[in-house]
Amino acid sequence: MSVSPAKPHRVVIVGAGFGGLETTYRLAGAPVEITLVDRRNHHLFQPLLYQVATASLATSEIAWPIRYLLRDRREVTTLFATVTGVDAAAHRVLLEDGSSLPYDTLVLATGARHAYFGHDEWEPFAPGLKTLEDATTLRRRILVAFERAERECDPTRRAARMTFVIIGGGPTGVELAGTIVELARSTLPRDFRRIDTSKARVVLIEAGPRLLAGFAEELSAYAQRSLEKIGVEVMLGQPVTDCNREGVVYGGNRLDAKTIIWAAGVRASPAAEWLGAPADRAGRLQVDPDLTVPGHPDIFAIGDTVTIAAWHGQPVPGIAPAAKQQGRHVAATIKTRLEGGKGGPFRYKHAGSLAQIGKRLAVIDFGRIRLRGTIAWWIWGIAHIYFLIGLRHRLSVALSWLWIYARDQRPARLITQGSSKVAR
Amino acid sequence: MSVSPAKPHRVVIVGAGFGGLETTYRLAGAPVEITLVDRRNHHLFQPLLYQVATASLATSEIAWPIRYLLRDRREVTTLFATVTGVDAAAHRVLLEDGSSLPYDTLVLATGARHAYFGHDEWEPFAPGLKTLEDATTLRRRILVAFERAERECDPTRRAARMTFVIIGGGPTGVELAGTIVELARSTLPRDFRRIDTSKARVVLIEAGPRLLAGFAEELSAYAQRSLEKIGVEVMLGQPVTDCNREGVVYGGNRLDAKTIIWAAGVRASPAAEWLGAPADRAGRLQVDPDLTVPGHPDIFAIGDTVTIAAWHGQPVPGIAPAAKQQGRHVAATIKTRLEGGKGGPFRYKHAGSLAQIGKRLAVIDFGRIRLRGTIAWWIWGIAHIYFLIGLRHRLSVALSWLWIYARDQRPARLITQGSSKVAR
Repeated sequence: MSVSPAKPHRVVIVGAGFGGLETTYRLAGAPVEITLVDRRNHHLFQPLLYQVATASLATSEIAWPIRYLLRDRREVTTLFATVTGVDAAAHRVLLEDGSSLPYDTLVLATGARHAYFGHDEWEPFAPGLKTLEDATTLRRRILVAFERAERECDPTRRAARMTFVIIGGGPTGVELAGTIVELARSTLPRDFRRIDTSKARVVLIEAGPRLLAGFAEELSAYAQRSLEKIGVEVMLGQPVTDCNREGVVYGGNRLDAKTIIWAAGVRASPAAEWLGAPADRAGRLQVDPDLTVPGHPDIFAIGDTVTIAAWHGQPVPGIAPAAKQQGRHVAATIKTRLEGGKGGPFRYKHAGSLAQIGKRLAVIDFGRIRLRGTIAWWIWGIAHIYFLIGLRHRLSVALSWLWIYARDQRPARLITQGSSKVAR
Repeated sequence: MSVSPAKPHRVVIVGAGFGGLETTYRLAGAPVEITLVDRRNHHLFQPLLYQVATASLATSEIAWPIRYLLRDRREVTTLFATVTGVDAAAHRVLLEDGSSLPYDTLVLATGARHAYFGHDEWEPFAPGLKTLEDATTLRRRILVAFERAERECDPTRRAARMTFVIIGGGPTGVELAGTIVELARSTLPRDFRRIDTSKARVVLIEAGPRLLAGFAEELSAYAQRSLEKIGVEVMLGQPVTDCNREGVVYGGNRLDAKTIIWAAGVRASPAAEWLGAPADRAGRLQVDPDLTVPGHPDIFAIGDTVTIAAWHGQPVPGIAPAAKQQGRHVAATIKTRLEGGKGGPFRYKHAGSLAQIGKRLAVIDFGRIRLRGTIAWWIWGIAHIYFLIGLRHRLSVALSWLWIYARDQRPARLITQGSSKVAR
C-alpha cells in the first residue's frame, strides 16, 4: 500500500449477503477499518433456501455466523444491528437504537424482500422465501397441510389441503414446485395411512409466457416438459388476481388450495429512500456506472437493492454471482481511490444460469453451451457444494444430498414453532 | 399368536417419546391396531437437547418425524393431534378438535414439562429446556447476550449481559454450564472485538448439598471440581428465592444476570388429572406394580408422567432408559394378556448414569464401576451416538462432534425467530 493515512479510512458495509461479504473479503490488506452491519447474525446461502423450505436441508447447513467468517480479520467489526437510515450530509449510518456510525465510505448491500405488487394483503396466505424463518414457516405449512389432509374426512376439503400452488415461474418457483412434487411422490407416501400423498396437486402459475424467463427458450420448454412429466401442473400467461384463505384466482379460474407460496417478485430494501435517490418501480436504486449513488461519490450500492444496465447494456440479474462481482468491484475501487486513483465502471460477466428442476434434473444456460437433464444436475450439485463456505458445511450438505439421492429421505421434516397451535 | 380376535385389539398410545415409541416398537407382530398420538410431529432425543441450546448440534440432528420411524408398520396410524383428556368410562381419548379415539388398551406416555414450584412468574426470565423450540429460544438468548454485551458501553450492564445463571445441578444443569463455558472460552473469543468472551461468568446454582444427586458422591465431587477448573462458579445449598428481568436472588445474595436458565424441576403432564388418579407433588401418576393406573386395568402409564418404586423399592429415575424399559414391559403385558395371560410387575434395571461435564470430560456411574474424565467422555459420546436412530443421524452428529472436538467450532450459532426484535 502506498498511502497509509495516520487514521485509517472507515468503511461501513450494511448487509452481509453475497455482496457485502465479498466487499469485506476483498478489502483484506487495505488500510481501512471496516464495520459490517447486519440485522441477522448469519450469512445465508439463499440459492438453497428452497431446500430448507422443503425439508431437504437443515437451517444450519446453509447459514454461517457472520462473526465467525470474519474472526481472523482484526480490522473488521461485526455489528448485529438494524439500520434505519443514512445521514449522508453528516456521513453517518443511523441505527435503530438511536446511535449512529460514522463512515468515510459507505457500501449499501441491503438486498430485497419478496413483494406483492400492491397486494400486501396476500402475504398471510402466500408467504415468500427470503429468510431462514420464511423457510421454516413454509416447511411447517407444507408438512401441516399433509397432516391435516390425513385427518380430513370431507373429500373437497381434503383436496384443498393437498393442493400446493406456487406463484412465479422463475428459478425459485421451478425449484420449489419440483421439490414439493418429489416430497409428495417419493418421500412421504409410506408415512401416511389414509391419504395417498402422491396424489397431491402441485400447480405452478406464471404470469409471463414461459418459465425461467432468464434462460434460453429451449431450456424453458425443457423445464416445463420435465416438470409436467414428474407431475407439476404448469399454468402460463395467467396472472394471479386474488389470494385468500381458500385459494387463488388466476385468469378467471379459482383453485382451492390451502398452501400457496409466493415466488413472483421482490422489492428492494429501502436504501433508495434513505438517500432520496432515484429508484425503479421495484424500489431498486439506480446507481452510476462505478456503482456509486448519484450525487454521493462516497456511497456505493450493490446487489439486489440496485439496478444497473452493466450487462452489455442489459440490467444485471439479481443473483448471487452478480452481487459478488459488484462487491469485488467496489473493494477494488476503494483500494484504487486510497492509492489516489479513480476506479472504472462495473461490467457484469455472466457465468451462467442454473436451476434444479427435480431429482436428478436441472438446466444450465452458459450462453453458447446449454445443458439439461442428469449431467446438468450433477454440475448444479457440485457447483453449489463448491460455493458453500468451509469443509464442514460441504460435508454436511453432501451427506444430506447423498441420503436424498439414495433413499429419498429428507431428515429435516420438522414441524416447529407453533406446532401445537397449528394442529388444532 | 394363539388368540387372534376377529376385530383387532385397539391400542392407543399417547406420546411418542422414549416410552411411547418403545411400546409401539415392541408391539410389532401382535394382533393389535395401534394409534400413536403426539402433539409434535417428531420424536426428540432429549438427552442431547442441551447441545442444540448451546449451538453444538442442529435441530434436525436430534429429531425424527414420527411417521417416518413407523412407515413400515401398516398397523400403526400416527396422529398429529393434542389430547385434552380421557373418558375412561367410554374408553375414549379426547382430542382438542372435539373428536375422540376409541381404545381397548390405552398407554399414557405423556412426559413432563419444566416446573417452577409455584413460581410460574419466573418462566419468562428463566426459560427451561424440554422442546426443540425451548432449545432454539435458549440458543437465541445466549447468543444475543454476547451480541448485546459487545454493544454495551456501561461496564455494570455489560457484566450482567455476560453472566449466565443455570438453576439446578442435575445432569442438564451440569451439561449446560459446562457447554456454555466452552462456548465462551473456546468457540467465541476470536469472533468479538470489544468484549473478551472468555471472561463470561457461568454460575450454577443448586439448592441441595451437591451436584448430580443421582450419582455416587465421589463423582459429584469430581464434577464440581472439574466444572470449577474450567471456570464455572458452583453454588451449593442455595435455593433461588427470586428471578426477574435483572437477575436472581439466592441465599440472600443478588446476582445481576441477563441470561437465566431453569434446569431445576419438572412437572408431570396432566395424565393424572385426566383420570382423577392419585399423583405425587410433581403431578406424577402413582401406578400399580404392572404399570396400570389404579382402578383402570386397561390404562397403562409410563415414563416421566408416572412415579413407581420399582428400583429395589426406590423410585425409578426420570431418564430415557427407564421409559424404554417401561414401554417394553407394557408391550409384553399387552401381548401376554391377548394370549390369555396376566403379566407381572415391572422391575427397573439401572444400566448406569452418564453426564458430560465439558469438553473431553464426563462422569459415568455404573453402580460398582465409576468412571470419570476422558475415558468416561468417550464412552458417553459413543453411547449417545449408538442410541440415535439411523445411520444418517449418527453420521451427522459424529461429524458435528468431530468439528467441535478438533476445531472448537459450533456451526449452529444461529439467532433465529424474532432476531430483528431482540437486536433492539
